[in-house]
Parts: sequence; structure tokens; C-alpha cells
Amino acid sequence: MPVLAAGLEREMASLYIALVHYPVLNRIGATIASAVTNLDLHDLARSCRTFGVPVCYIVTPLKDQQALTHRLTSHWINGKGGELLPERREALKILKVVEDISSAREDILEKTGKLPVVWTSTARKEPGSMPHAQARLLLEREDGPFLLLFGTGWGLAPTVFEEADAVLDPIAGVNGYNHLSVRSAVSILMDRLLGNRNAQGE
Amino acid sequence: MPVLAAGLEREMASLYIALVHYPVLNRIGATIASAVTNLDLHDLARSCRTFGVPVCYIVTPLKDQQALTHRLTSHWINGKGGELLPERREALKILKVVEDISSAREDILEKTGKLPVVWTSTARKEPGSMPHAQARLLLEREDGPFLLLFGTGWGLAPTVFEEADAVLDPIAGVNGYNHLSVRSAVSILMDRLLGNRNAQGE
Repeated sequence: MPVLAAGLEREMASLYIALVHYPVLNRIGATIASAVTNLDLHDLARSCRTFGVPVCYIVTPLKDQQALTHRLTSHWINGKGGELLPERREALKILKVVEDISSAREDILEKTGKLPVVWTSTARKEPGSMPHAQARLLLEREDGPFLLLFGTGWGLAPTVFEEADAVLDPIAGVNGYNHLSVRSAVSILMDRLLGNRNAQGE
Repeated sequence: MPVLAAGLEREMASLYIALVHYPVLNRIGATIASAVTNLDLHDLARSCRTFGVPVCYIVTPLKDQQALTHRLTSHWINGKGGELLPERREALKILKVVEDISSAREDILEKTGKLPVVWTSTARKEPGSMPHAQARLLLEREDGPFLLLFGTGWGLAPTVFEEADAVLDPIAGVNGYNHLSVRSAVSILMDRLLGNRNAQGE
């Protein structure tokens, strides 16, 4: 393997992220497909690029939402936006639109030769959930690849939890308050799992 | 002091946050006043409420931007939004619009009897910047209050750094990439300075 490729590879995490728009819950607990939010795409792409996540899957079965996502990102990847802000282009290239969670798993199999271990995130404490330090250790041991799912709306539907290999601890707030935006939750979890606390930037 | 008040007080951090819209830099390095972004207000308020930050100052000298901010937040604090989502009301109440950074300092003096130690955040490595673990230690010793400033646009203007007591380390990304959104950067720094890594949620 060429030296350069190996060097770059070391910088990439074995953690993949998916932002799930279906199946998720709405405010009254019904399973729905939520709408794609432009700022989610930008914030998640920028966080993923910062922490070395190879792909951030945007999961939606809705054709119009898939088309919208392609239109929003292509402005930055192929259009005027990328000329103005090359570092934004570099981030948004990480996003990949897929039909469902299975397609994300299949894509990782194709890329790495292995199906990923699937982790879910949640704002509620679930029985047997995994501490973040333990998840970080598994990532460092490279027993991956891993796919971490985030729900939009009022969170991932129960079926997603049933099919996952593990659920990560929620991010604890004071007095039990935990209503972080998905943008904040993704950023904090990525930092806890992959962030370099000793580095001082460059 | 009543027991309940003391108990609540213990949950509150001695860290205050300000999102600065002036003076900040634009893409070509000129000092400008940036526009208030609705989603910044929501995401920062939710993160501050989660980590026990008492006040998040929204700094803008522009009267129309101050009025816009009041209009956006009052929907959730006094209007229909808060009835629908009481936890969002609880978060947005933390925001306070002020004219300039001095007004935020004066407000903290009024609340706590002390002027805050002022910290700036940045995406660039600055000489002598403070590691996050050291900032966390100062917070735990309660040598506060502390006011941590975040810049919108292309970051805080040089004069803000000159007047601050310290600048915190940037959040290091892989291969030197660091283009987090301000929403992500605030969330990650708040977690590094105040987050409880041993807690498992509730």
C-alpha cells in the first residue's frame, strides 16, 4: 500500500454516521418521515470532516427529499458555493443520500469488506446502554466499522433500536434536562468518541 | 439562604456565554456586524440549558436585529410555541439581548457582584492559548464568574482578543481541518468545560 494512502487512512475514523429521517417519531409518538433540514446537512458535514468520519449518510426514502438534498449539496460541491468556500465543499462531499438504513450498511460493506456494528443514539436513558468511554475504546481497538444512527424529529422509531447492536448513553444535562438539537448532539458525541483532547489545533 | 435555592444554585455553572455579532470579521477580514440566525438562538439556548449555563448573551448593536431576536424568542417564551414545547421555552428564556460585550460584563456584575473573567474562543491556534482541561479546572474551583465569547461570521475581531483575559485552545480536527459551525463549536466546548462524562442521563 502506498505510504501516502496509509497516512491518510490513519486519520480516518472507523465510525460512520447516519442522520435518519425515516423511521422516526413525531411529537405524538407516531412513526413518520421527517423533512431534510439544510443546516443539518452543513453542520453534520463540517463536524464529520473535522473528526475524520468517512461518510455521513442522509437517510430518506422520499424522492423529493433526496432530490432536495442533492440540489442543496451540489451548489457547494459542483457550483459557485465551492469556489467561494473550498473548505465547505470538502465537508459536504462526505454526505451520501441513501434510501434506508440497510443501504447505508451495504455501502459500508462495499467500502470496507465488513458489515458495520450498528449503534443508536438517544436522549432517553435506556436499560443496558453503553457508556461513551466504552464506545471510544471499541473505536480505538478498531473492531469496526461502526455505524452510529441519529434520529431527527422526536427520535428514532422503536424498530431501529430493536435491530441495533447497542444503544449509547444519552448526553446527561443538569436536572435531567436533555433537549439538545441533533446538530449539537452529533457534535458532542463525535467529540466524545473521536476528539483529541490533548491536541491544541494547528 | 433557603435550601432549595442553594440546591438549584449548585446545578448552575459559573460560566456565561456570549454569541457576538459585532465586532466580527467577514470573509475578507473587514470588521462587520453580522445578522442574527434563528437556529443559532435555538441551538445555543438548548445547549446552555442542558449544561447549566445561566445566561447566553446575544450581542448586537443593531436595533432591527435586537427587535428580530425578541420577536423570534417571544413566540416561544410568551406565545404559542411555548405552550406546544415547554422545554423549548425553558431554554430560550436563557437568552438575553445586549448592545455590546461591555453590557454583558455589567449584567454579570449585577447578577453576581463580580465582573467576569473574559475568555475568547477561536478556530485558529493562538500563542499562549489555554487548554480546555485547564479552563475546566478553573470553573470547578469557582474562581468565576467567567464569560466565554463566540464569534459569528469569520470570527471575533482582533480588538476582542486584545481585551480578553485569555483565549481558549481551538477544537483540533484531523489534518488541521477546523471549520465547525458556531453551533457545533459552542456545544463541544460547553461539554468539554462543563459536561459530566460519568453521568448516564436520567
